[in-house]
Amino acid sequence: MMKKSFFFLLVCFLIEQSVFGQSPEAQKIRKYGNENAGKIIGEFSEFLTLPNVATDPVGQQKNADFIMGMMQKRGIQNTQLLNATTPNVPPAVYGEVIVPGAKQTLIFYAHYDGQPVNPAQWSEGLEPFNPKLFTNALDKNGTNIPFSKDNNYNDDWRIYARGASDDKGGVVAILNAYDALKKNGIKPTYNLKFFFEGEEEAGSPHLNEILEKHQALLQSNLWIICDGPVHQSGKKQIVFGVRGDTNLDLTVYASKRPLHSGHYGNWAPNPGMMLAKLLSSMKDENGKVTIKGFYDDVTPLSPSERKALDEVPSVEEQMKIELGINDVEMQGLTLSEAINQPSLNINGMQSGNVGKMASNQIPTIATAVLDLRLVLGNDWERQQQKVIDHIITQGFYVTEKDPTDEERSKYAKIIKVIREDGVNAQRTSMDLPIIQKVISAIKLTTTDQVVLQPTMGGTLPVYIIEKYLKATTVTVPIANHDNNQHAENENIRIGNLLDGMVTMGALMMMK
Amino acid sequence: MMKKSFFFLLVCFLIEQSVFGQSPEAQKIRKYGNENAGKIIGEFSEFLTLPNVATDPVGQQKNADFIMGMMQKRGIQNTQLLNATTPNVPPAVYGEVIVPGAKQTLIFYAHYDGQPVNPAQWSEGLEPFNPKLFTNALDKNGTNIPFSKDNNYNDDWRIYARGASDDKGGVVAILNAYDALKKNGIKPTYNLKFFFEGEEEAGSPHLNEILEKHQALLQSNLWIICDGPVHQSGKKQIVFGVRGDTNLDLTVYASKRPLHSGHYGNWAPNPGMMLAKLLSSMKDENGKVTIKGFYDDVTPLSPSERKALDEVPSVEEQMKIELGINDVEMQGLTLSEAINQPSLNINGMQSGNVGKMASNQIPTIATAVLDLRLVLGNDWERQQQKVIDHIITQGFYVTEKDPTDEERSKYAKIIKVIREDGVNAQRTSMDLPIIQKVISAIKLTTTDQVVLQPTMGGTLPVYIIEKYLKATTVTVPIANHDNNQHAENENIRIGNLLDGMVTMGALMMMK
Repeated sequence: MMKKSFFFLLVCFLIEQSVFGQSPEAQKIRKYGNENAGKIIGEFSEFLTLPNVATDPVGQQKNADFIMGMMQKRGIQNTQLLNATTPNVPPAVYGEVIVPGAKQTLIFYAHYDGQPVNPAQWSEGLEPFNPKLFTNALDKNGTNIPFSKDNNYNDDWRIYARGASDDKGGVVAILNAYDALKKNGIKPTYNLKFFFEGEEEAGSPHLNEILEKHQALLQSNLWIICDGPVHQSGKKQIVFGVRGDTNLDLTVYASKRPLHSGHYGNWAPNPGMMLAKLLSSMKDENGKVTIKGFYDDVTPLSPSERKALDEVPSVEEQMKIELGINDVEMQGLTLSEAINQPSLNINGMQSGNVGKMASNQIPTIATAVLDLRLVLGNDWERQQQKVIDHIITQGFYVTEKDPTDEERSKYAKIIKVIREDGVNAQRTSMDLPIIQKVISAIKLTTTDQVVLQPTMGGTLPVYIIEKYLKATTVTVPIANHDNNQHAENENIRIGNLLDGMVTMGALMMMK
Repeated sequence: MMKKSFFFLLVCFLIEQSVFGQSPEAQKIRKYGNENAGKIIGEFSEFLTLPNVATDPVGQQKNADFIMGMMQKRGIQNTQLLNATTPNVPPAVYGEVIVPGAKQTLIFYAHYDGQPVNPAQWSEGLEPFNPKLFTNALDKNGTNIPFSKDNNYNDDWRIYARGASDDKGGVVAILNAYDALKKNGIKPTYNLKFFFEGEEEAGSPHLNEILEKHQALLQSNLWIICDGPVHQSGKKQIVFGVRGDTNLDLTVYASKRPLHSGHYGNWAPNPGMMLAKLLSSMKDENGKVTIKGFYDDVTPLSPSERKALDEVPSVEEQMKIELGINDVEMQGLTLSEAINQPSLNINGMQSGNVGKMASNQIPTIATAVLDLRLVLGNDWERQQQKVIDHIITQGFYVTEKDPTDEERSKYAKIIKVIREDGVNAQRTSMDLPIIQKVISAIKLTTTDQVVLQPTMGGTLPVYIIEKYLKATTVTVPIANHDNNQHAENENIRIGNLLDGMVTMGALMMMK
């Protein structure tokens, strides 16, 4: 009998640990989320109906006003729109909670703008700004069900809409985490500031202006960036650095007017072929970038970063199955190792038309957008220059404008290269005391491993925050990894949204 | 004195030859065109407002009805729509003129369908199915002017619309040439039949059915195909053969869902890079196709064809300036020589998005449409197979469907290849007596050289006509060479339309 009840108690304890293995405070936040899911998700889905492309200042103003309303409803103080010096820039939305006795301040960051959308590429029945609820991911046979006002939401359900995970979900998790603390009478241990940006997906071109202009208001001991996905294993992760990022827009020129492919095919140059040959020259068959010096400048990982990297759970085989791929581009590297290298990706390329719009012609131009991701040590302008130098070695005349007739008559291979703005990579030391507190706080929200990532693949404006405010930053993502961020069918898993509240809440009361 | 007047007469004679150096009948047709330009162009522009993509049977029916009306107005007999066996296929439009005493019959062919349109690619102010009149080509500073009902039209003016030159212009030139003969009391020397196709730009997939079903009606001694452009030098040309044509649609597969280029860039495969490497492998730096056996099977030119080719005026330097290119793709060949070789052209390619729609993602697929042009001796299915065999040598698994999960897990490089239908090339001997008559008739319409082309770059369904009716065909194009055929900003020069009437009229009365 004795043994049996001990065994029973042990089982109960293990169940308790695996199912409710969070601190009592974390459990309270999760309970609040479950019991208020209808209200939380109702407000969220209203937020998601507002188009949020950074280049649309009118649309962005509506989003900013909506967030102001969300904060005011929650009794957050000193709410205001922080404008840049440049006019017609989507404002950052600010608010704060002064906690009696608190000596230090955390700023919670998320962004409310989203990547541009091409509605035609979304699956049938989905629209970027008409959020829909599904019983699971689309590729896991999820079916559309109506939003409901009661609180009966399942963790595996998903909301599909632009911004669902990147990063309106972050705004919603942060503000509802604060609500959950307040309703449960839990006092934050830090003064809290909230900063929601409206231009992150456009590369934060005016964030420096906003930070400089409102420097006094934005003092803090730590910025917590809530953006990006949790680990592919489903485990929570803390991210200490981000890849930098910059783009190059390439346009290769052929004939000034489109030509009939029969009358001129294989006499007049084809811009698609010229571009294909150029792009093809940039990588070898093992996925390694062949551009001279491309992997130079990289700052090596510190011993503790190397150790953290070694402890990242292996997800390669799982991800290959999930993504339906048989092999990886960069031979011999794990995903986390690949992310700690600079990369070159073809975001898009186009020449003429394909599919139903295809016609038998030689197009006039071929274009490609290259995405260069950077790691610590890389400089974005230097990285761009390496690519441009490579293009020159391939026999191209490089210009920044459409070629003149004179240039056309002089050069066989002409390319326009537009250098987009960029940001460098950033990495915060894991050994800082406040960072150790972050790690401890997140560990209290789960019995599972917390993955420590020296570098996240995504690019967040932490470099700018560090540079203009001399601030310390850490990134704590909450979205499911299969959220289709930046692409069609963006979505967030309900469980990730509600757990995200727990994570954010834990940070507000970290000790 | 004597000498001076002789010299004066000689000058007058030379002016007469160069400016009005046509046979009296040709001059009468041109005069009729000039004096009725308002009416002719008015009817033409109404015709051009009718959308004419072959895959739209409802739209095509309206075009067919319009042509029926045009023929009936002109007293052309036995007008009827010739349907295919397959339902919902755009009909061919037929009519005839039985000439008392005529022993032989000519069939005049043109097509009323046009290539698919992407209105966004047309220049500002232009729409494919809203024809506009300009004082010159757009790239020669042409400005938009209203159509007028009077007959004051300038030869250099242009009409911009889909089908203007390819090939509603052909329909209009043929029917108005007949009008001009009739109004001038000139009796055709042959029975005349008219056959206007509605699916040429889709590769004439049902022309064989129409020809077989209406075989008895369509007997003739010669088909005259009015399609394509005159020589780039502006000289008239007669074309004895056409390139064959077929397309291959390629889709390269990467991850099943679009991925964030930061989180996965250079770990997950990029389909654009895979496609670029594949396309790039298909040609060497001198523009020569590297696919095994690509130039095999080619039937050599006969001595008279080789001679004709040598006499084609050199247009290479003019064309380079006009097209704004410094070099050609196929090194060491003249344009006419290049056209007498099989070709491989990238009609279009796309992966992800570019321009304003670009986003930082790894797309799921990359697609390209390849256009294979064929010459005499090539077989379109054999030519497709050579390309597919090459793709396999590049390490791809080739499928005809979207890959299954099993295929995805098994193969690193997967491509879907869709074989479109095709037609083989064709060439008519220049030495046939009726062809000699055609050459003589066209020579009577101009004092300039008439260019004899063994092969035209464009692909016309002459192969099908030859095969199913055992007919002889010859192609007599009329459009300006810079007509943007198959692409945005398609146009016809007024002078080419009116001279085209002269050309067609000359054939109706050839001796």
